[in-house]
Amino acid sequence: MQFDHGGLEILDTDECRALLSRAVIGRIVFTDRALPAVQPVNYALHGTDVVIRTARDSRLARAATDTVVAFEIDDFDADTRTGWSVVVVGRARLVTEHEQIAVLQGLPLHSWVPEERDHFITVRTELLSGRRIPHTPMASAKAC
Amino acid sequence: MQFDHGGLEILDTDECRALLSRAVIGRIVFTDRALPAVQPVNYALHGTDVVIRTARDSRLARAATDTVVAFEIDDFDADTRTGWSVVVVGRARLVTEHEQIAVLQGLPLHSWVPEERDHFITVRTELLSGRRIPHTPMASAKAC
Repeated sequence: MQFDHGGLEILDTDECRALLSRAVIGRIVFTDRALPAVQPVNYALHGTDVVIRTARDSRLARAATDTVVAFEIDDFDADTRTGWSVVVVGRARLVTEHEQIAVLQGLPLHSWVPEERDHFITVRTELLSGRRIPHTPMASAKAC
Repeated sequence: MQFDHGGLEILDTDECRALLSRAVIGRIVFTDRALPAVQPVNYALHGTDVVIRTARDSRLARAATDTVVAFEIDDFDADTRTGWSVVVVGRARLVTEHEQIAVLQGLPLHSWVPEERDHFITVRTELLSGRRIPHTPMASAKAC
């Protein structure tokens, strides 16, 4: 088990991928009109790509494609003060090839909102990192 | 009740502030070495400022101060496909004034990690926005 200089456990690639395969909500991080922007989205994986549905005229389609974005998932427990996070960094693109769209339409990925979201953004996993707050007696004691 | 063009309910300022006052974990969004970065943190409020503890030599202290950052909280339920998010955008700064540090040390804000985090970053609320996925019969049906 390895730790970073902040005392957090460093998750290995396999563990990051396993966590990514189980979560359903993440946050895509990008820049919009020169300001940092973040938007929660539900997602699925296609190979190692993160796949998101969107509308063609959405803020995501406009600002979070053809650029490098971050994508984060996490889970924390306030009672035990433990939890983990995984971050993907990579290029996002709006999928335009009909064959590729047909493949992505087969994913278990359905919009949670009323708006029609018939376009797909993929985020390639170019950097993958994860951290976990170690479950220490100290952390448990602090949580009391 | 107002909705954005994506069909999400727009939360008003009072509701955003109420949600910010109840959550304990958020994600700070910034740029690190020209790449988008996101890091979960526990936080407290001081007035309308978001307050985070960090170590002086941390990535947050280095890359997420004296710059505009975003700070996001959310809560989603995969079973009902509902949830909400609130985003603060504003300038982050490392607090250096002794009087101000003494005030922030009185907040109910304790690090969840073993590392000592005896410095404070504040994020001023310059932009505040929130969205909620409306709980519609359609959403419930989709969730089955």
